[in-house]
This record gives sequence, structure tokens and C-alpha cells, in this order.
Amino acid sequence: MLDVGIVGGSGYTGGELLRLLAAHPEAKVVCITSRKLSGKPVTSVHPHVRSIYNLTFEAPTAKEIAERCDIVFTAVPHGTAMDWVPELLDAGTKVIDLSSDYRLPVDVFEKTYGMKHRAPRDAVFGMTELHSEVSSAKLVGNPGCYPTGASLAVAPLAKAGLVERVVYDSKSGISGAGIEPTETSHYPNMAENIIPYKLTMHRHVPEIRQELNRFDKSIKVSFTPHVFPGIRGIMTTAHVLAKDSAVDTIQDKEATAAIYREFYKNSPFIRMVPGVPKLGAVRGSNFCDISFEAEKGTDHLVVLSAIDNLVKGASGQAIQNMNLMAGLPETTGLWFAGLAP
Amino acid sequence: MLDVGIVGGSGYTGGELLRLLAAHPEAKVVCITSRKLSGKPVTSVHPHVRSIYNLTFEAPTAKEIAERCDIVFTAVPHGTAMDWVPELLDAGTKVIDLSSDYRLPVDVFEKTYGMKHRAPRDAVFGMTELHSEVSSAKLVGNPGCYPTGASLAVAPLAKAGLVERVVYDSKSGISGAGIEPTETSHYPNMAENIIPYKLTMHRHVPEIRQELNRFDKSIKVSFTPHVFPGIRGIMTTAHVLAKDSAVDTIQDKEATAAIYREFYKNSPFIRMVPGVPKLGAVRGSNFCDISFEAEKGTDHLVVLSAIDNLVKGASGQAIQNMNLMAGLPETTGLWFAGLAP
Amino acid sequence: MLDVGIVGGSGYTGGELLRLLAAHPEAKVVCITSRKLSGKPVTSVHPHVRSIYNLTFEAPTAKEIAERCDIVFTAVPHGTAMDWVPELLDAGTKVIDLSSDYRLPVDVFEKTYGMKHRAPRDAVFGMTELHSEVSSAKLVGNPGCYPTGASLAVAPLAKAGLVERVVYDSKSGISGAGIEPTETSHYPNMAENIIPYKLTMHRHVPEIRQELNRFDKSIKVSFTPHVFPGIRGIMTTAHVLAKDSAVDTIQDKEATAAIYREFYKNSPFIRMVPGVPKLGAVRGSNFCDISFEAEKGTDHLVVLSAIDNLVKGASGQAIQNMNLMAGLPETTGLWFAGLAP
Amino acid sequence: MLDVGIVGGSGYTGGELLRLLAAHPEAKVVCITSRKLSGKPVTSVHPHVRSIYNLTFEAPTAKEIAERCDIVFTAVPHGTAMDWVPELLDAGTKVIDLSSDYRLPVDVFEKTYGMKHRAPRDAVFGMTELHSEVSSAKLVGNPGCYPTGASLAVAPLAKAGLVERVVYDSKSGISGAGIEPTETSHYPNMAENIIPYKLTMHRHVPEIRQELNRFDKSIKVSFTPHVFPGIRGIMTTAHVLAKDSAVDTIQDKEATAAIYREFYKNSPFIRMVPGVPKLGAVRGSNFCDISFEAEKGTDHLVVLSAIDNLVKGASGQAIQNMNLMAGLPETTGLWFAGLAP
Repeated sequence: MLDVGIVGGSGYTGGELLRLLAAHPEAKVVCITSRKLSGKPVTSVHPHVRSIYNLTFEAPTAKEIAERCDIVFTAVPHGTAMDWVPELLDAGTKVIDLSSDYRLPVDVFEKTYGMKHRAPRDAVFGMTELHSEVSSAKLVGNPGCYPTGASLAVAPLAKAGLVERVVYDSKSGISGAGIEPTETSHYPNMAENIIPYKLTMHRHVPEIRQELNRFDKSIKVSFTPHVFPGIRGIMTTAHVLAKDSAVDTIQDKEATAAIYREFYKNSPFIRMVPGVPKLGAVRGSNFCDISFEAEKGTDHLVVLSAIDNLVKGASGQAIQNMNLMAGLPETTGLWFAGLAP
Repeated sequence: MLDVGIVGGSGYTGGELLRLLAAHPEAKVVCITSRKLSGKPVTSVHPHVRSIYNLTFEAPTAKEIAERCDIVFTAVPHGTAMDWVPELLDAGTKVIDLSSDYRLPVDVFEKTYGMKHRAPRDAVFGMTELHSEVSSAKLVGNPGCYPTGASLAVAPLAKAGLVERVVYDSKSGISGAGIEPTETSHYPNMAENIIPYKLTMHRHVPEIRQELNRFDKSIKVSFTPHVFPGIRGIMTTAHVLAKDSAVDTIQDKEATAAIYREFYKNSPFIRMVPGVPKLGAVRGSNFCDISFEAEKGTDHLVVLSAIDNLVKGASGQAIQNMNLMAGLPETTGLWFAGLAP
Repeated sequence: MLDVGIVGGSGYTGGELLRLLAAHPEAKVVCITSRKLSGKPVTSVHPHVRSIYNLTFEAPTAKEIAERCDIVFTAVPHGTAMDWVPELLDAGTKVIDLSSDYRLPVDVFEKTYGMKHRAPRDAVFGMTELHSEVSSAKLVGNPGCYPTGASLAVAPLAKAGLVERVVYDSKSGISGAGIEPTETSHYPNMAENIIPYKLTMHRHVPEIRQELNRFDKSIKVSFTPHVFPGIRGIMTTAHVLAKDSAVDTIQDKEATAAIYREFYKNSPFIRMVPGVPKLGAVRGSNFCDISFEAEKGTDHLVVLSAIDNLVKGASGQAIQNMNLMAGLPETTGLWFAGLAP
Repeated sequence: MLDVGIVGGSGYTGGELLRLLAAHPEAKVVCITSRKLSGKPVTSVHPHVRSIYNLTFEAPTAKEIAERCDIVFTAVPHGTAMDWVPELLDAGTKVIDLSSDYRLPVDVFEKTYGMKHRAPRDAVFGMTELHSEVSSAKLVGNPGCYPTGASLAVAPLAKAGLVERVVYDSKSGISGAGIEPTETSHYPNMAENIIPYKLTMHRHVPEIRQELNRFDKSIKVSFTPHVFPGIRGIMTTAHVLAKDSAVDTIQDKEATAAIYREFYKNSPFIRMVPGVPKLGAVRGSNFCDISFEAEKGTDHLVVLSAIDNLVKGASGQAIQNMNLMAGLPETTGLWFAGLAP
């Protein structure tokens, strides 16, 4: 049984780690921290775990956490994780960081987030389907929610050398913006609306480029996110423009399907689906559902992926990483169906 | 043409007054105030009126407003209206106050809102269907949104002496809580939920009691509000418990219908509808749709009313008051259909 | 390991049984039937269980099902279950019927549903918190969704002899109306609306009366349901009018709390919560969250309960019954947190 | 005063014509038809116009309509309008057809809709901002909802010769799919979801191509529509890929803005807005709000447009056409603000 700690447990990803780990047969949350809520029961912000957990938020030092935990999830804002991770690692604990502090090379991080990185460490980008080296990692940078759906949708085509350019148009539920009320999350603004934002330069773009360019440096990536009136879920519409040499392949539905099948043959959470993916089919689960369709006679292939941003896009993927880092089967505690309808 | 001022125009009722008055043939907004937004265009918070208005928020004194306006809507928080109203009245302007400062007798106001009333004045409760004296008023206290739907639903029965008790169960769209984001209005909290609040002692209860007890002092009133995931609209479910002597009447559908018909024969905005009222049929309009059904063989009559909380429940009703105060037909500028679907 | 069958598995309760039973350590779905979808994979209507199940809808006889299954859930419409249940029972299988065919005495059933009961059998009303005799039952009539939230909210007060009358005002998500599109479930009609229906005579009323009158024959019950724009969840607002002799008790918060605590001391799925229950805290889970507040100085007590209509209000409660009928702990396979946000 | 007829008035566009024309000072609906609802009051499907109209659905011949009306809106399905239009025109009535029968050249229509065109006539494509010839038209083909938002967003750039290719990613409220319930419009499917469909070959694509290629034959157009959980509104995200020669221009915000300003200088319903357009700012109104942002250092320009699909995307635009055809100012009866929030 793994003793697990959660640093910064008062937000949505913290609450979701609690929900998911309650059903995990090999892990147990022994410590959850929150500076501002220290001393309060976790149910004060996570009423859904009432009766399931009898935990209270604490405010221990990194060293104290490390003594009590085999593995720690850091679910604090970017720029704060770097204050926790080195000490946790040095004390011998494995760490899965849900912030963006350990996802990118230092220079890219500093440019993207406009801040100095005070504590760089070797880390693996925790998208298990693309990074088998997770198994031996001490520190995993858990991917952003958008990059998860976006990279998984196009990686097989990128590896196959088919892609000239991708214009991503992504749509996220509003829980991706966090637990604090904002003007955007105000119901009268969000309902009956769909809101494009950071039209050309969202901070998640470097992660997507990093993952696709590993396979093919020449791929160009654009990315425009939107929030739609839903709590959970990211629907990614990837407009793939194929290389001239690849048009015949993307126009051949079976050839394209074979590329996906082969690429994901050992990835239980990727489901190639008929028709279009439905957020209702992945809600609350760790699955990523994918389908595609070529525009007849052109270089344009539409690839769709659906994930739950708080599960496969955050806490579920983090547990998937934990499983591999602990030598457990990838699916342990995560092999359940989504909440439909 | 009436020159109209709006004091405190940065909220939803201010934006709605702008929308509605833009279509009014006899009134023109010449001044709109906001301390915190002074100098900014009204479109900075009300983007829907772009191109329709070229107004800028101002921060004039009451006296300056009174000089420029024939009639003023005060759309400021309760406790603040009383700082504006006396000076406006003394300068000869008519005032329609959308706050709660002039809806209740002073002692009831002070008890309900837990504050001293610094500037009591004679005012008429601006529910035109129940208060013909609006026509000659200098100051109107515009009714609360819940009391509008609740009082209109039951007033005819109250006047007919049929009512022993009413248990109101009301459901409001979240715009009733205002333009500022809160924990309740946070989309992930409000969506897929319906939230009861102030279960037994909402501040609007005294207004409802006042209106029903005018007709029959013995009527007992309970009121439980909820917010449902919708932007606009209040659906009031009034569980009327009839007096023993009235059971035969409420069990007679036609007899009850006749009471409503007679009571509202001169009220163009009240529509008795077949089936159940639909919020979609009143959305954006000044109508109040009503229907009812008796529980067979009992003293229990369910009365339903549907209004748009920002129109009939606030700014539309305020303009209805303005019309009467200015000697115009009640329907001037308000005789349009709701936005359906 | 229990071999489980689902008769009539193409609807929401069938899909939910699949989801829940996939996580059950002691039960396994071996057969799921649908006449119209026979031969099609279950994922054709339940895409959320893709990769989790590899089942195909079948159309076997009751006898064939009985041979393969230890226990069978009948999830067919009322009036149809009675065609399956007797044969399943006679073949030695235990049955949990999710329709309304075995919830009421025959005469009450026939009057309520306007049809002859062709196959009455002894059955236990499967609300485990109120019916310990479930443990020894061969046939359980699984309660309706509204009666579950409504009865659990008031039963402790009824048993304590405090209740004169209850005016229920319930609000359900639209999944309660089933998987088939209707005018009411049409998004433009349901969104931004809250729809009262069957204002005084919903078919679930006799179940509620049955459960409360078991404790106190004199209690009068009224019930008005609404659908609100949400997928799952029932929020029940119970307006309890206390007996004259009980006013002091309901006005004493601690005394009332003690009554609930004692009544539910062995009921792990009932959670007495501070503040108001939230549908987001029970979504996808088998919990029923309850709280209450008395209207000061009156006989009026507002009791609130929140359940997921498809879990505690249907498939989860059915599995809770299965657990007890099979000698398993009540919580087996059901002890997980809701999906929040 | 124009006497107006509506052929096929039982759907959403018919209801919206009623709403809008009720506020039109120069037009009056004298006849509304529906075969299946003939004899029933219009309020039977359009409860929002109760008390505003006292009309009953009729089933007259085209000739009878023509005798009573100066102008007729045909709001029937594609393939049916062609059975009405010629006879109406021959009888001397002007016609605005809201179906797709008169928007495209006959060969393109026949290929797109897979049917023979039985009654081709000369018609003007009724997008007034791009087609000044509307003023002298006898027959106008009122544009599709998607093509309205899509064409208006990019036309100025197309005319300026800047555009190599456009990848449209559009998001529509579900009212665009009509008044009849479907699996997609079923609330549990639509809520908490965003549904891509007809990924590469929606029937509206030829209209968009027609409008852009009028300015520049070389522009390539792709189009992927989605429905999001909202009743009204289309948010169009146009990913414009500029010609090599145009990159400097699109990277110059002021230069691009000037192109839009000049192009739309006489188009009162087009509003260039700061930030991103909001559906809440155009809801219920005839405005089209537009903004844009270039991806730094690339050929990629994101252009956004927001319209109400039932107003600017259908009935409002139809009335705009009517105004011009009748020699009225374009804004007559349409110059009002959207419903916000």
C-alpha cells in the first residue's frame, strides 16, 4: 500500500485526487495540505468525500510530508511547485507535479511563464502513452489538460511523418479555470455562450509543440482555446493539414485507422471510436476517445479527441503516472466507466 | 419626451433599463451614473447596447441629475438609495427606486434589513396591478423580484377571502443575485444543481406578506427560494392551503378562473395560460403568466407564475410605473413578445 | 461471485447498472437483454462502457436468463415487468424490479397505473434504510426516484410522530424522464427553464404515502414535481407542517438533529450535512444528503434531501438491495465519492 | 404599412418572425400558414406571442396569400419552398425565402441537396452587407445561419486579396437544429457536451465559398460545425491563413482594422468590438459582432464573429432584406439591443 500525500489539496485537482484514490486498491491518502485551510476538514471544500475520508487539511513542511509519504502529488499553482519539489525529492519521495513547473525545458518555461525557474530538476513529461520512461522517473511533470487531448489526437500522425501543420481549436469545460469564481465563470456570462480566449498564444502551446516536434521537427502548431458551458471535458478539434506526400494516406480511412491502432496498441485508455467522441462517454473517467474524418480530395483531416479535463487531463493521468512509477499496472484503480448520461 | 436618469447603472437592472428604454417612444436616457466606472462608456459593462447608446457613466450630484431629468430610476443597493432619493424628490424629480429602501413601512424595513432608515419618505409600492395609486405617486418603491411573482399569483384568491396559508416555493435564475461573481454563481457550482437558500427567512417575505395581508390579515405566508441553472426567470410554485369554507371554490376550476379573470381584467401584462407557464414564453418580456390546479378533494391549490426577474421583476415593472406616473398608457414601450426559444 | 442479469438494459438505469456493477467486487454482469437491440453491442447505446464490457444485447427467455444468473434486475417499463418476474422467481432466481410493478399493494397499483396487475407476488419495498426485511427477500420492488428522496427526508420525523402534513416540492434532473427525446427534454425547452408537471397527482405519490403512513397513518402528503435543467439529481424540498404538539421539538435544532441521527445510525449512505445539500456532492454516488431548518416560531420545518436519481434513486439503490439479498455488506461496490465538480 | 405573410410558421424562424414583426412600425403579419396546425391559434406553438397576436394558422393557396400580402416569408423546409415561390412571385408578391432553395446556382443546389430543382428563379443572396442588389430584388434567398457568421467575418479580408485559405470552426446553439426533438437535442446528450458533426461537408459550405470566392476565386474553404449547450447563437472561429504577400498586413493590427472599418462603414449591424465577441451581447438582436487577432510572426489570423442564429442568422436578416426591398431604412424595426445577461 502506497502512502500518498497531496500538497495543495483545496482545488479541483486535489478534490479529484481524493475521489480517485478512494477507489485505488494500492494507495491511501495519508496527508493533504492547504495553508489557508489548515485545520479544517477536507469536506469543507470537498463535500463529495464526506464519510469517505476523515482527513483534515494540514500545513506541514516538505520534509515532514516526505517522512510520511511514499509518493506526493503537488497540486499547487505554477511557480509554487518549484518551492516544494526539490526538498521532497531530496528526502527520497517520488513526486508527480500537476503544475507546469516541470513540463518544459527551463528556457521554454521561463519564456512562457515570464518568471525565473528557481529549482530545475530532471523530470519526465508524464504522458504515459508517449513516454515509457515514466516507469523509472522520480519526478514527473504531469501534462496540461489541453496538451493531453491535443497531443494524443495527433501523435500517431506526427510519428508517421504525415503532418505539415495543425490548427487546433479546443473547447473546455469551465472547471479547467479552477475553483475560484471569476467573471468568466459567472453563470450569466458562461451559460448560453462559448468564449474564445488567448486566441493565439495560450501557455499550453509549448507543451503541444514539444510533444509533436519530438516526432517531427517540421510540424507547425497553432492553438485556439474556448470555454463552453459545461463543467468538465475537453473536446479537441484538430485541423490537420497533411504534407503533400501524405494526402493519399489521410484520404484512406483504413490506412489512417491502422496508424492509430498500431500506435496505441498498448494504451488501454485510448479508445478509437465510431462516429464522434462524446464528452458524456468519458466524463469522470480516464479514457481519451478519438475519431477522425478526412475532407474529401484535400489535405485536411479533422481529428477529434474527448477527455475529462480533471481526470485524463489532470488527476487521473497523475495516478496513471503513479501506477507506473510504483510498478503497478497502468490501469490500477482507474479502470472504470464514465458517468453517462 | 421624458428625460430619464439612472442612478447606479452598472448592474443588471441598469443594463436592462438601457435595453428597454432604447425601445421606448416617449423616454430617453440622458444620464447614467456609476461612481466606480465614471468616465467609462456604458458599453464597458453593457456590451449589448453598443451602437444603440453613446453614453458614458457619470458621477454627478443628485441635484445635477434632477436638473437634467424628469424622472430618475435609482438602481443602487439597499441602504444607498436613501442617500439619493430625498434630494432628488426635493428638486422636483419623480423617482422610481429599484432597491428595497421604499417598499416597506420604516419599522418593517429596519427590522428586515438590520439598519436604521435615515430618510423615510411617502412612497407607493409599485406593483401596478395591485396599486392604482401609482399614477399619482412622486416616489415609487419598485417591488422585489420574488414578491412580484408571488403576490401576483395569489392576490386574487387573497382578495376573495379564500386563503388560509401559502407555502411558497420559488425558483429563480441566477441573474437575480447580481452581476458580481460569487461562489453560488460559479458555473461548476450552479450548473447541474438547484440551490435552496435562506430557507425560511428571505428578506422579500415582508413584501409578500404586506401585499397579501392588505386583502386578508389572517393569511399566513412561508417562503423558500431556490436558484436554478438559468440566467433569467422566476417560477413561483405557490402551495395555497384554502380556508375550510373555500374548499368548494378552489375545487371548481371555472369558479377559480373567474376570480382571476375578474381581478386582472384591466391588467394587460397578466396572462392566464393553459397548462403550465413557461419561462421561455416570458423571457425578456414584461408578462406574468399564471395557471393553477387543485389537488382533488383537498384544500390544496397549486398556483404557478412565471416572470422574467429582470423585466417584470425589476426594470420592466419600473418602466410600467414610470408610464403611469407620466400619464402614459401602461404598456408604452413594453408591449413586445418574449424571446423564445 | 454473483452472476447478474439485466432485463431491459437499453435505458439509463440499465447503463447505470453496467457502470456500477463494473466496479463491484462480488458481482458480474453475464447477460443483458433488449428486444429491439438484440445482437448489437451494449456500447451502441452505452458508449461509456466501451473497453470495460464486451457484452452484446440478447433476447433470451426468462427461463434461459434464470439458468445463467443468480440475481436479475428488471429494468423494463411498468406493466412489462410483471411478464418477467414470476417466471424468473419460479426458476429460483432472485429479482430486483426497477419498475413500479412490485412497489405497491395490488389495489393501489391498479388504481394508480390504470391497469390490471396480471401477476402479483410478495415483494419487499426496497428502501433498505426503512425495510430491514430486504435481507430475506426473493423479490424487491425498487423504489421510485422521487419517493426515495422524499421518504428518506421525512421518515425520522414521521416515526417520531411529529408530522401533521407534508407539502413536497421536488426538483429532478431530466434524465429521470428517460433516454427517449421528448418535447420536454428538447434542449431549447428545458434549458433556462424549470418545468412543473403533474402538479397534484404524480404516480409516485402513493409510494411516499405508503412509507410515511407506515409510521403514522394520519400524515397528509401533497407532492409537486418539477424538472430543472440538469442531467442528474433530485433536490427535494419538504415543507413539513408539524403537529401542534410537535412545534417545540421542531423548533429545537438539536432535538430534531438527534431524531435523525438515531434513526439513521446504521445507514451509511445517509449523510446529515451542514448548510444545504448539494447535488454536486452526491452526483454519481449512492449517498442521500439531508439537512433541515425550522421557520422561527411556526410549525413549518423545511427539510432538504439531495440524491442522484439514477444511483440512490434507481440503480445504486438496486445494488444496495442486491448486496443485502446476497448477504454482502450494504456498501459493497458502492462506497465511492460523488463526481464533483 | 406592409401586409406580411408567413408560409410555414410553426417552427422557430416563424415564431421569431412573429416576435420581430410585432415591433416593426411599417409591417403587419396578416397571414401565417401551417398545414398540420391549420385552425389552431399561433400561441399553441408560440406561447411567447400570447396577447400580442390573435392569429390562427391557416392553410391557404399561394394565390390566396398573394392576394392578401405585399411580401411573403417562406419558412418551409428546403425542397418545399420551390413549390410556393414561383406562384407567389407570379401573383406579384415579393418573396424572402428562408430555406436553401434560392441561395445557390441550380447546379450547386442540386449537387449539395441531392435533389432536382423543380422551379429555378432569379434570386438575390440576401446578405445585405455584401449584396446591395437586394434593394431591387423580387426574390431573396435568405442566407443560412452558418454562412452569415462565416462570410461576414472574412469578406473584408477576401475582398482585400489577403486570404489563402480559411479553416472555419463554428459553434452553434441547438435551436439551429429546429423545433423537433432529436437525439442530439435531448438534454442529457446536449448538456455538458459540445458535439462536432458533418465534420467536413456541411451543406452550408457552398454558400460560404460562393460569398468568399466572389471576391477572390483562389480562396480555399474548410468548415467544421459543432453544437454547444446553448439555445441561441453562433460563434464562428475563422482560422484565416494569409497569402505570403499578406502576412505583413495581417500582422499589423491597425491595417487590418482599417480594412474592416472601410468595408463595413455603411453596415450598421456590424460591430467591430474590443476583446472577443460575446453571444450574450447579440442574443435576440440583429447585430454581428466581430474581432480578430494575429498569431505573432505567422500567416495565421483568428477572426471571431458572434450572431444570434435566429435573428441575424435567419428571421432578423430576413426582415433586413424586407426593409430594403420595401424602400425602408435597413434598421427599421430592428434597431434594438440584445438580451443581456
